[in-house]
Amino acid sequence: MTETVTINDVGPRDGLQNDPGDVTPEDRAMLINRLVDAGLPAVEVASFVSPRAVPKMAGADRVVAGIDLTRADCSALVPNHKGYELAQEAGIRSVAVVLSATETMNLKNINMDLETTVRVCEEVVGRAVADGVHARAYVSVAVECPYEGLVSQQRVHSLAARMFDAGAAEVIVADTIGAANPAQVKSLFSRLVGEFGATRLSAHFHDTRALALANAWQALECGIRKFDSSIGGLGGCPFAPGAAGNLATEDLASMLEQAGFVTGIDMRRLLEVVELARKLVGHDLGGRSLAWQLGRKTEAA
Amino acid sequence: MTETVTINDVGPRDGLQNDPGDVTPEDRAMLINRLVDAGLPAVEVASFVSPRAVPKMAGADRVVAGIDLTRADCSALVPNHKGYELAQEAGIRSVAVVLSATETMNLKNINMDLETTVRVCEEVVGRAVADGVHARAYVSVAVECPYEGLVSQQRVHSLAARMFDAGAAEVIVADTIGAANPAQVKSLFSRLVGEFGATRLSAHFHDTRALALANAWQALECGIRKFDSSIGGLGGCPFAPGAAGNLATEDLASMLEQAGFVTGIDMRRLLEVVELARKLVGHDLGGRSLAWQLGRKTEAA
Repeated sequence: MTETVTINDVGPRDGLQNDPGDVTPEDRAMLINRLVDAGLPAVEVASFVSPRAVPKMAGADRVVAGIDLTRADCSALVPNHKGYELAQEAGIRSVAVVLSATETMNLKNINMDLETTVRVCEEVVGRAVADGVHARAYVSVAVECPYEGLVSQQRVHSLAARMFDAGAAEVIVADTIGAANPAQVKSLFSRLVGEFGATRLSAHFHDTRALALANAWQALECGIRKFDSSIGGLGGCPFAPGAAGNLATEDLASMLEQAGFVTGIDMRRLLEVVELARKLVGHDLGGRSLAWQLGRKTEAA
Repeated sequence: MTETVTINDVGPRDGLQNDPGDVTPEDRAMLINRLVDAGLPAVEVASFVSPRAVPKMAGADRVVAGIDLTRADCSALVPNHKGYELAQEAGIRSVAVVLSATETMNLKNINMDLETTVRVCEEVVGRAVADGVHARAYVSVAVECPYEGLVSQQRVHSLAARMFDAGAAEVIVADTIGAANPAQVKSLFSRLVGEFGATRLSAHFHDTRALALANAWQALECGIRKFDSSIGGLGGCPFAPGAAGNLATEDLASMLEQAGFVTGIDMRRLLEVVELARKLVGHDLGGRSLAWQLGRKTEAA
C-alpha cells in the first residue's frame, strides 16, 4: 500500500535564477546529472528566455547538451513561442508555460496583460500537444500576489481550466512568494482536486514563513502526489539560509519517506548534491532538516 | 466561526532546563511575566524537583513568588509527592505529572519502572483532584523512544486512560525527541481524540526534523486545540538555532493566526520576548519563521 510521490527538482532553474551566485551551463548540467543520479524522477533543467532578460539562464542549450534527457523528466520553461522553438531545437521533450494569476504580476513579470499571457500559454501548449511534447502549465501567485493581495480561488480555477482545455497534461499550482498557510492550501486544493482530479495537479511551495512542509502535508492530504522543490532550498535569500526560499528537496523528501511514501530518492546521495550545490553557488545552503539529516548520516557512519 | 487555540509556553521550564545558559529564578519570573503580558494564556513556570537532580530548576519557589498566578494558567511539573507538596507550599494551583511511555525511558529519566511511575502519577493526580488543583499528565516519548524505538498506540492509549481514570483534566501527548511525522500524528491523534475527545488532549512537538509545524497542523486537523510550545524554540541545541528543539511559540502562533485561529497573543510583543529570552540565555535563539516575522515587523514600522 505504499504510494509514490513524484518530486520535480526546480533548483537548477527556479533556484539558480534567483540565487546571487553565477553558475556556468556546464556546472548546471553537472548539478542536474547528480540530481538524477540521486533518484530525482523529474528536474526543471532550464528556461528558454532571452539572455538579455534573464542573464542567469543564458546557455540553456549548453545545459541541455550536457544531460541525458531520457533518464528523467527534464523539463524547460518556455515563456513564449520563441522559447518553445529554442527548446525544441535543443531537444527538450517536456515544457512548462507560466502564467501568473493576477493582472499586475503578469505585467511586472513579463510585461503582458493576463489575457494575452493566457492566450500565449494556450498557443504554446497547443503546439506542444501537436508536437507530442509533454506540456505543463504553472499558475503562479495562486494564493497571494505581492501586488494585488489575496487571489480568488475562482481565478485559479478558471486559469487552470483554460490550461487543461488547451491540452496541458498538468497544472502546477504555485505559492510563488510563500504566503500560503495550510488552511488556504486545504481549501484551494480540495476544490481543484474535486474539479480536475489529483493526478493532473502538482504543488509548488516556498518556505518564506516556515510553512512549506505543513502546506505540502496538507496538499498530500488533499490527494496531491506531485511536488516541486529545490535542492538545498536553492533560490532562497543567501543572507538567511532556509529563511525564505523554495521548499528544500531534502526537507520534502525526508518528510515523505518518514511518512511512508516512496520517492525513489537516495537520501545519502541527495545530501551530497546539497553540498555540490553549495559549492557551485559559493554560499551557505540547505533545508531546515539538513542539520538533523547530516547528524544522522554521521551517526550511521 | 473563529476558533481559539490555547498555547502553553513551556520555555521557562522545559526550554530553560535543556538550555546550557543559567538563568536566575528572578529572571525566569520576568520571562514568565513578559509571556503573560504578550497574551500567553498558559505558561509552564517551574519544576518542583530536587535541586540536586536538576540544578537548573532550583529556586522554583522564588520563580513562583515573582509571578501573578491569577493572570494565566501557571502550571508546574511535579514528579512525585514531595514535588507536589512543595508546589502547594509555593501556591501553585495547576500541576502536571510526567510519565514516559516506555520502561527504559522511565528508568533512565527518573529511575523508576513504568508501573511504579504510573502509580505515583495516579496518586499525585488523585491528591490534586482532592485539593481542587488542576491536574494534567504528560505521556512523553509517545511516538518514539530513543531507547526502545517505536511506541505502540495501544500503550499510549492505555497510559492516557489511566491518567484520566485517576482524575487528570488533560493528557498532553508529547513527541519528546521530535521523531514523529504527520502520518503518525494523524493515526495516533485520530485514535486518542475518538476515544477521549479533543478537549481533554494537548500536543507537544519538537522540531528536531523540521516537522513540528506539519505535525501541529495535522493535530489541529484531528481536532486538537491545545498545544505546548517554547518561546524562541528554547530548549533546542544552541549550536544550531532552530535545528533541534521545542516547537517555537512564534512559529506556532504565526501559523495559527495566519490560518484564522485566535490565540490571544500579541505577535509584536511576543517577538520582544524572543529577544528577551535570547539575552537571558546568552546565545542565538528563534523559531524558523523568526527572520520573516522580524522582516515584516520592520516593513510595518
